[in-house]
Amino acid sequence: MNNTYCIKDISLSQEGQRKIAWVAERMPVLNRLAKKFQEDGIFKGKKIAVSIHLEAKTAYLCLILQKLGAEVWATGSNPFSTKDDVAAALAENGIHVFAQHGANEDVHKEELNSLLSCHPDVVLDDGADICIALHKRPELGDNVKGISEETTTGVMRLKRLLDSNKLLFPAITVNEAKSKHMFDNRYGTGQSTWTAITHLTNMTVGGQKVVILGYGWVGRGVATIARGMGGHVIITELDPWKALEAVMDGYEVMPINDACQIGDIFITTTGRDSALKREHLINMKHGAIIGNAGHADTEIEVDKMNSDVLSIKEVRENIFEYKLLTGRLIYLLANGRIVNIAGGSGHPVEIMDMSFSLQLASLHYLLRTPKLEIGLYNVPEEIDEIVVREKLAAEGYEIDT
Amino acid sequence: MNNTYCIKDISLSQEGQRKIAWVAERMPVLNRLAKKFQEDGIFKGKKIAVSIHLEAKTAYLCLILQKLGAEVWATGSNPFSTKDDVAAALAENGIHVFAQHGANEDVHKEELNSLLSCHPDVVLDDGADICIALHKRPELGDNVKGISEETTTGVMRLKRLLDSNKLLFPAITVNEAKSKHMFDNRYGTGQSTWTAITHLTNMTVGGQKVVILGYGWVGRGVATIARGMGGHVIITELDPWKALEAVMDGYEVMPINDACQIGDIFITTTGRDSALKREHLINMKHGAIIGNAGHADTEIEVDKMNSDVLSIKEVRENIFEYKLLTGRLIYLLANGRIVNIAGGSGHPVEIMDMSFSLQLASLHYLLRTPKLEIGLYNVPEEIDEIVVREKLAAEGYEIDT
Amino acid sequence: MNNTYCIKDISLSQEGQRKIAWVAERMPVLNRLAKKFQEDGIFKGKKIAVSIHLEAKTAYLCLILQKLGAEVWATGSNPFSTKDDVAAALAENGIHVFAQHGANEDVHKEELNSLLSCHPDVVLDDGADICIALHKRPELGDNVKGISEETTTGVMRLKRLLDSNKLLFPAITVNEAKSKHMFDNRYGTGQSTWTAITHLTNMTVGGQKVVILGYGWVGRGVATIARGMGGHVIITELDPWKALEAVMDGYEVMPINDACQIGDIFITTTGRDSALKREHLINMKHGAIIGNAGHADTEIEVDKMNSDVLSIKEVRENIFEYKLLTGRLIYLLANGRIVNIAGGSGHPVEIMDMSFSLQLASLHYLLRTPKLEIGLYNVPEEIDEIVVREKLAAEGYEIDT
Amino acid sequence: MNNTYCIKDISLSQEGQRKIAWVAERMPVLNRLAKKFQEDGIFKGKKIAVSIHLEAKTAYLCLILQKLGAEVWATGSNPFSTKDDVAAALAENGIHVFAQHGANEDVHKEELNSLLSCHPDVVLDDGADICIALHKRPELGDNVKGISEETTTGVMRLKRLLDSNKLLFPAITVNEAKSKHMFDNRYGTGQSTWTAITHLTNMTVGGQKVVILGYGWVGRGVATIARGMGGHVIITELDPWKALEAVMDGYEVMPINDACQIGDIFITTTGRDSALKREHLINMKHGAIIGNAGHADTEIEVDKMNSDVLSIKEVRENIFEYKLLTGRLIYLLANGRIVNIAGGSGHPVEIMDMSFSLQLASLHYLLRTPKLEIGLYNVPEEIDEIVVREKLAAEGYEIDT
Repeated sequence: MNNTYCIKDISLSQEGQRKIAWVAERMPVLNRLAKKFQEDGIFKGKKIAVSIHLEAKTAYLCLILQKLGAEVWATGSNPFSTKDDVAAALAENGIHVFAQHGANEDVHKEELNSLLSCHPDVVLDDGADICIALHKRPELGDNVKGISEETTTGVMRLKRLLDSNKLLFPAITVNEAKSKHMFDNRYGTGQSTWTAITHLTNMTVGGQKVVILGYGWVGRGVATIARGMGGHVIITELDPWKALEAVMDGYEVMPINDACQIGDIFITTTGRDSALKREHLINMKHGAIIGNAGHADTEIEVDKMNSDVLSIKEVRENIFEYKLLTGRLIYLLANGRIVNIAGGSGHPVEIMDMSFSLQLASLHYLLRTPKLEIGLYNVPEEIDEIVVREKLAAEGYEIDT
Repeated sequence: MNNTYCIKDISLSQEGQRKIAWVAERMPVLNRLAKKFQEDGIFKGKKIAVSIHLEAKTAYLCLILQKLGAEVWATGSNPFSTKDDVAAALAENGIHVFAQHGANEDVHKEELNSLLSCHPDVVLDDGADICIALHKRPELGDNVKGISEETTTGVMRLKRLLDSNKLLFPAITVNEAKSKHMFDNRYGTGQSTWTAITHLTNMTVGGQKVVILGYGWVGRGVATIARGMGGHVIITELDPWKALEAVMDGYEVMPINDACQIGDIFITTTGRDSALKREHLINMKHGAIIGNAGHADTEIEVDKMNSDVLSIKEVRENIFEYKLLTGRLIYLLANGRIVNIAGGSGHPVEIMDMSFSLQLASLHYLLRTPKLEIGLYNVPEEIDEIVVREKLAAEGYEIDT
Repeated sequence: MNNTYCIKDISLSQEGQRKIAWVAERMPVLNRLAKKFQEDGIFKGKKIAVSIHLEAKTAYLCLILQKLGAEVWATGSNPFSTKDDVAAALAENGIHVFAQHGANEDVHKEELNSLLSCHPDVVLDDGADICIALHKRPELGDNVKGISEETTTGVMRLKRLLDSNKLLFPAITVNEAKSKHMFDNRYGTGQSTWTAITHLTNMTVGGQKVVILGYGWVGRGVATIARGMGGHVIITELDPWKALEAVMDGYEVMPINDACQIGDIFITTTGRDSALKREHLINMKHGAIIGNAGHADTEIEVDKMNSDVLSIKEVRENIFEYKLLTGRLIYLLANGRIVNIAGGSGHPVEIMDMSFSLQLASLHYLLRTPKLEIGLYNVPEEIDEIVVREKLAAEGYEIDT
Repeated sequence: MNNTYCIKDISLSQEGQRKIAWVAERMPVLNRLAKKFQEDGIFKGKKIAVSIHLEAKTAYLCLILQKLGAEVWATGSNPFSTKDDVAAALAENGIHVFAQHGANEDVHKEELNSLLSCHPDVVLDDGADICIALHKRPELGDNVKGISEETTTGVMRLKRLLDSNKLLFPAITVNEAKSKHMFDNRYGTGQSTWTAITHLTNMTVGGQKVVILGYGWVGRGVATIARGMGGHVIITELDPWKALEAVMDGYEVMPINDACQIGDIFITTTGRDSALKREHLINMKHGAIIGNAGHADTEIEVDKMNSDVLSIKEVRENIFEYKLLTGRLIYLLANGRIVNIAGGSGHPVEIMDMSFSLQLASLHYLLRTPKLEIGLYNVPEEIDEIVVREKLAAEGYEIDT
């Protein structure tokens, strides 16, 4: 192949190929869309810059883009999530890949620069890293028709640029599509949180008092499965309508001050800082298990417990035992980081299938339509609908029209 | 028709026909068995004495027997459950029927005697009334090849006769068949209890604290549906294994002394006397609803509350309000009698379909086999299996072999 | 009492009192709000015109208004839903009530006129009947500070007036409050639909194939409880996102063309005309049961089946048997009208408790604030929140703040 | 310490200690029983020979026995399940331990001989290895008061000895206790099967068609949780009563010939050989996932597929891809071995807590009662009850008496 790359070790490619092959079989929506887009040749010869967590599922998206005729230039959106074997597989397959696990900031900047030297036509971004780099060297963005941004964090960075009239490109915010957030939060996080917790702890859920903080989409997903596994679910909420919904759905509802004393397992899903406060943590029962299913690791106030804790040790992989002054032991999963990712395998592949299909269709949209005015755009309803309809078709479901 | 009968009013027959026609359509297992038995002519010319709650479902069984060639002589097993319109319909269809709603004891005896004058070949009994009558006038039982008994109460009466060496006939105890008790208690009582309670009270179950006393088959059925309707279920149990099963199934478990103070709805399913004691009743919350899903009306100690109660009135059909000395109001459904029957329409017709199919097959068995030795017999496994297999077929299910 | 009234028969009042007394005990939110509003004296001496389905629950709302110091003038919003015993009880309690069951149109107009002769300060309307009458005789509306409208139908009539610049009063549309539609549709209709169906048919839900047309809020409520009772649920949908949600929630999803051939029970919840078409009805299995849980009786195309049907008869109360030319029998519940109301006891009292609390608080708001400009208003968020918080408190739940 | 041992590497002990410490905290029933038995001194000075899968949970049982005053001599029941770090920790704690991971047959025999040289008072056996060894050298069993056997396989070996009049010792068969099989199969296997499958595959269960072969206790446990996670469950059964229960519980039921063509995930729970036959496997959909939750790896006929398969490769840890001649790919988990153990972490610790508590109490019983006659014994009901009551108490539940 005639591609340039800078990776850790090309000899790791076989293991990377194996991982990619597995996900390839399990992303039917992406495969169906790719087939659909093959006919119009929109991607042919286009240069696409990609910054994203570089693992098997995202790598497969890169290969799909390549198969559709694009020249793909890729880096990892976070050096610590880059898998070197996957990067090697991409390099071997002709992707221009600049990514090494654990690269320091300077190296990562260099990677981004190498990427942008291709003068991309469109950008697939995760956290707005490419976008920010392009704003520093706008001459490299002369061909850019638009950006497709995956995350909320990235959207917020774009919004700040827009608000200060500095944004240079139109951008589509994939996160807001119904095909993404309706399924991702409820079904993706709901299940993968429990897979992670039961795998890490080897405990039964049946008969446990499971306290779920928050009854938004994530909380509902986590609660539904907890009950489905025989857990006795207790919900805490600030919002009275959600609290009443939880009551009507048959859950026990109480303030966290009460719940903290009776729960066996605690899961935060509020999206707020300090949902589980120091005062709750020190009042828990001996043996309580605590995990976070919200985005940020700030939902649980472990950082304020210094004077309450005799010792902390990792007693099992990703399970941290806090020995309190009271003598009680409590267990924090994955150090309070989002447990299904930091302590598990992340979202099921089917969920990412929908998310990346939205990405593929959004890039296709940017390339096939006249250049949009600078600004932030929702995924067009027609694309959102194509993805959900392909998903139904891929699963073998017909519906009425 | 050339039949003898003694009923209230033959002019009621049309309404009776209508009721029977409805159930006829909804007893597919009975219909399939009847078709099967048509070929061998076993019932042809046989006289069958039937004592059973005389309503549409049982009436239909009588008509099936007649259609198979038998001469059916029928009475009601309890004059207060006899429906006069159904009796009229039977009379009009040529059944020898002797049954009037509310007949006094003398009249009922007379009815039984009229019945037995036919010298039956087999007997279908419910509570052993015919059997006892035959033991008083054994000369009328000279042709009897056997009895098929529906109820536990009847079986206990037969057992007493057997134990004192006085039993004169072989008898099959239908209640013990797997096709009956596995489905009857869990699914039949489970659902019909909730239909009765929600219909009587017009209350939501969602969000209510539902205390279920007992976690046997009835308790499980009632609990499953309570949870399915959004109820917050609390189980009380004496048996530690059942209590632990309830815990593992995700229910809250506690002693009745605690549960009595927090429940919104109480349902007894223990099969024991005084499961809900006076001391529990007077400690309930204002507005508590109390019902019994067990066989006897002795599970709730309302009879011991005389000195605690200021007044009792029926505030809504079959809902009795107890005004306690404390000022609190609690509500007893159907006076503590089994709520799905006394306060509702009883078991769903599909459940009785299986039960009566067992009866039909048991009578067929008694007639086709050499006379059994005197004694009590379970429904033969082959019959039990025929009924369950016909049920599956009637519902359109195939299974592996 | 010094009140004027025109009702059927004052001697029926005792039974009416009994019915009202029952609901009085079961509307804790309304009772708590009433207590709260007692202090400010806002309702004192105010005249309130009320047109609403005149049964126990609404009657109790009238009595609450009276107790708060208002002079209440009431009629039924539909003469066929008026309960004469309840009207008698209101008359006896000093409400100015003009309502007779089954009154013809002329009489009903007369009733409305009698009502308006009081020159009301505020109006509680259900279907905009009072509002329309006031627009014909605006001189009677000289004191009116506003209208609180219960239904969607009423809101649509008001909107037409507004759009043609003819609306004379400000009006609050109660139906849009979160405390109403979030609970009403899902939990109220969900449960009461099943109570009605199981009570009408005496059938089991366990093991039945239940086809639910539509997966909106009503459909979800009906589906959740169907599954909770052991039903095998099949969903049909037009909207692909909702269809996929149904799939992810574990339901079977298919087009109605396929579902119509395998269902045992069909429930329409789409809110659209002709959801179940003639072609679906004639292809159903022998014995299929069909009910509607949507607002209008036009979801099921029975009116187009004339040439397919040999006979129609009511085989059981509110169950209509259609004998098709094919020989098959299918059963329509409540003639296709909304089954939980037309074939049951309507919404559980707890649901109406929230709805009427919104009414009470909306009237209070209209009276205590300066006259609003003419227009349509949502229930103010603060009122919506008061109601949901009082509901939680009434049920004994505390939540975090 | 003054103990003898033969292990791989004593320096591994720290990691072993950490693992044991974790389970020590999560076996409250065992801890409560140990406390109870401390008073009577029954174990003091007794020699106990233990052969069991040597990992953290079993190691903790050994340490409990030691703490109660016994001298414990331990080996692994299967060299491949022995964890060397745990063995090291036991050695360091003074247990006489003879166990090395992967030891060959000769070495393992030697280990057993070293063990028996202690002339044990009682034996804790798993698979009857010690028992068989004792029968070969009965002089070492001169002090043996009895054996407590964990497994069904072991019981069958003991039974063969008994039937041929060769059994030399009384033995308690722990597997039959209600506290074991009621919870182990349903809740233990039910959950851990799904933890293993979702962890291995990183797939969603929501919306998947999950075919479960068999509706015994294991099948029910697996089905309950599958539904709880949003799976669309299909049951296949031979037994018509179980099939009808599955129908009434709301599951789809069909023959495996039909189910094999539509399932996404297949789980065998029948306990029979060849439940999933070659003809089923080759007719599955592209992408089907297949796992076994039954004891033996003979439920799935992969061994008969040689002529149907182009290639087999492990595409992800413990996931074997079968490329069929038809071009379709199907995926076998853990090579058809019991997936929750071979492909996961086995039973949750709480389940083993009950199982090992039965062991501890059974050994206590053998030591404290006069020597039983030679034969096989169920766990005495009183012991079964002590364990279940301690479990309830440990979880904080009180029940009625």
